[in-house]
Amino acid sequence: MPYFDAASAAPLHPVARQALLASLDEGWADPARLYREGRRARMLLDAARETAADAVGCRPDELVFTSSGTRAVHTGVTGALAGRRRVGRHLIVSAVEHSSVLHSAEVHEQNGGTVTQVAVDRSGTVAPSAYAEALRQDTALACLQSANHEVGTEQPVAEVAALCREAGVPLLVDAAQSLGWGPVEGNWSLLTASAHKWGGPSGVGLLAVRKGVRFAPQGPVDERESGRAAGFENLPAIVAAAASLRAVRAEAVQEAARLRELTERIRVRVPELVPDVEVVGDPVRRLPGIVTFSCLYVDGETLLHELDREGFSVSSGSSCTSSTLTPSHVLKAMGVLSEGNVRVSLPAGTAEADVERFLEVLPGTVAAVREKLGAPAAETVVRDDALVVDSLGKRCPIPVIELAKVIGQVPVGGLVRVLSDDEAARLDIPAWCEMRGQEYVGEEPADRGTAYLVRRVS
Amino acid sequence: MPYFDAASAAPLHPVARQALLASLDEGWADPARLYREGRRARMLLDAARETAADAVGCRPDELVFTSSGTRAVHTGVTGALAGRRRVGRHLIVSAVEHSSVLHSAEVHEQNGGTVTQVAVDRSGTVAPSAYAEALRQDTALACLQSANHEVGTEQPVAEVAALCREAGVPLLVDAAQSLGWGPVEGNWSLLTASAHKWGGPSGVGLLAVRKGVRFAPQGPVDERESGRAAGFENLPAIVAAAASLRAVRAEAVQEAARLRELTERIRVRVPELVPDVEVVGDPVRRLPGIVTFSCLYVDGETLLHELDREGFSVSSGSSCTSSTLTPSHVLKAMGVLSEGNVRVSLPAGTAEADVERFLEVLPGTVAAVREKLGAPAAETVVRDDALVVDSLGKRCPIPVIELAKVIGQVPVGGLVRVLSDDEAARLDIPAWCEMRGQEYVGEEPADRGTAYLVRRVS
Repeated sequence: MPYFDAASAAPLHPVARQALLASLDEGWADPARLYREGRRARMLLDAARETAADAVGCRPDELVFTSSGTRAVHTGVTGALAGRRRVGRHLIVSAVEHSSVLHSAEVHEQNGGTVTQVAVDRSGTVAPSAYAEALRQDTALACLQSANHEVGTEQPVAEVAALCREAGVPLLVDAAQSLGWGPVEGNWSLLTASAHKWGGPSGVGLLAVRKGVRFAPQGPVDERESGRAAGFENLPAIVAAAASLRAVRAEAVQEAARLRELTERIRVRVPELVPDVEVVGDPVRRLPGIVTFSCLYVDGETLLHELDREGFSVSSGSSCTSSTLTPSHVLKAMGVLSEGNVRVSLPAGTAEADVERFLEVLPGTVAAVREKLGAPAAETVVRDDALVVDSLGKRCPIPVIELAKVIGQVPVGGLVRVLSDDEAARLDIPAWCEMRGQEYVGEEPADRGTAYLVRRVS
Repeated sequence: MPYFDAASAAPLHPVARQALLASLDEGWADPARLYREGRRARMLLDAARETAADAVGCRPDELVFTSSGTRAVHTGVTGALAGRRRVGRHLIVSAVEHSSVLHSAEVHEQNGGTVTQVAVDRSGTVAPSAYAEALRQDTALACLQSANHEVGTEQPVAEVAALCREAGVPLLVDAAQSLGWGPVEGNWSLLTASAHKWGGPSGVGLLAVRKGVRFAPQGPVDERESGRAAGFENLPAIVAAAASLRAVRAEAVQEAARLRELTERIRVRVPELVPDVEVVGDPVRRLPGIVTFSCLYVDGETLLHELDREGFSVSSGSSCTSSTLTPSHVLKAMGVLSEGNVRVSLPAGTAEADVERFLEVLPGTVAAVREKLGAPAAETVVRDDALVVDSLGKRCPIPVIELAKVIGQVPVGGLVRVLSDDEAARLDIPAWCEMRGQEYVGEEPADRGTAYLVRRVS
């Protein structure tokens, strides 16, 4: 049963399993104690720290273990902001950061700080020049992910780090998606990561803070992990995390090349096999194992459900697939289609045959979902000079389906006005226009919901 | 090799180990995902929550899993204080709470809140009436441990909970030391615990918040664990924590009786076997597995080292045994001797023979340490009407040893003035006076350090 959601959580690496088992017996005691069980635990902890620091490219005393990648980000961002409180309270983040970074930024704003969100292009990449422009006298911290978790796009971290260093501003790099593949290049100041993304166990994150970076942990602390991660160390899992990081690194070059070939196959063949698909994310500067595409006229939740029935576990940034009703902030920031969105993220060791079977199964699955949604009765009336599509109360992808059905009914140069109260329409109607070569005129408030205006060009 | 420090961390229970292994295969995926691996993880998480809630005595939707007991306390205290911000900013804690509670209180004070520390008696017990007196109009939260982690004394939680409820103030109970033995009695509002204290794995804490208790989590959060514990769930460990809690509870009554007999043996026989020992903590209302005593004229670190060489792992609240230079705040609050302090905390399953061997080994070990410290040259001069002992620059237990050596040199009714700059002397000299039936007159500032005045009574 192929599991294609490694970007969410990777299955446990065999080395992680072995190390975890071994350290359950040796590493359960308090490493702060002086008796033999404590000393043994301390030795395991020290060794794990050295291994992880080596993989990160920092000194062991610059690295602490946290209880998750999210916790590492929360602690890293708030600690760095507090450490530079005197300089100012301005924070820079990219628009496509992980939610843990964006949540930290929200809290910072609620507490009176200011935040600049740096935009990305259609591939999901930030421009280093945009970071240069965002840097101010009162900038306390900048954050940039090493690579995006939803579309796999790699960011120009080294360039941004150099610009930040020139300005005397620390850069925090969320390396959750990339650390298993290699160290983060460039002169970063803080780095965070999450073990279960590389095949380590859950319950372990990394936070590296370079010597010389001002850092003031917030909230209650204790004496553990240099006062940067309170609570008893999750030791067997820490040992497993470090051991598996070393193991995946040893296989990284070869496995990256193999997965890159497999995801390239998906990138190329999905648009050939499935009509009306947009593959998103940078085609070249990208992580080896992630490929993301969006299918017009498809409801993401149904598609995921059908793929799950066929044995494929994938995720989606569509608004209709999770507890949230808004589409992925990443797809939104990129301005690409969110409907029928599918993220395939291959774990290390994915069999070629599984990818081939996915490519076999996908076209029929998409076609079936499209057929099911096929012919919703669109109530259309011509008002003023525009054809009005009333999609109020209907969820994605219905508004776009109805738009697509009526666009041929207006003459070239004519307008279609789509009424919708689904947040996803704001993203998907312009994205559809871009894909279809129609002109997106803009939106305006309606009595209920929003009216999206589209002019037929061809 | 007998490990007698279960109060710090208990060895992994066999059921925890089994459950951890089983859920490594079944429970690594994201429980928020809709595909089969995610659904499986969600089922495991839900089942673990039901098991743990059953043991705690709350509803499953009142309980979240945190990354440690410390984290549960930090989140619980700050969330409850913020939830009742409008009522006021007064916090009540006992003087013998775990450091995680006291650290939270310190941060609260730094942020402008007020804190009342409720004193304990010589057995380490709080008086419910003292909580009643501490409750104010603006009290947002009260905290009381179910039982003390250093001396094992059980607190009158049900009485204090009733008083708090009458006043409309929520009570947070830190049940880290007792939850494995049974649910916390009484009408508490919030409860915290830590899995590795009952033989579960590290990396898992519990936070229960009763419905109706105002609670506002602070800092960045995410959608996991009802917004009360951010970051990917430490699932295999959570499953192991819940399974082992159920397992230890099934054995609790029988094992408690057995351990209680063993600790009673230590309580009774140590003072018979070793001269100048004070057994501390309530003799009746106490945890089954913990017994604590202090040995006069002994340096705690050396004693622990010698016991470790004999194969016994114990801990100590003496100032000379850890990275800190101040003696345990618990012993200090109780006003008992801190020098030569030893905490024996027996894990479930401790063999009677190991306890017997400990009792065999202890007298010789203490005697050897005493002999080593034996006869420091005390410089004594008579100034005014007092014999002056200059212990400046000397660390515990030297000041008390020197006091003991000269007390016979002054007539009954005469004074000894001990000069010391060791923080432990402030606790240990009065405690020695109480043990020896001498009168502790008081302290006064000296040119260097502090002068402690003792009057010879007998």
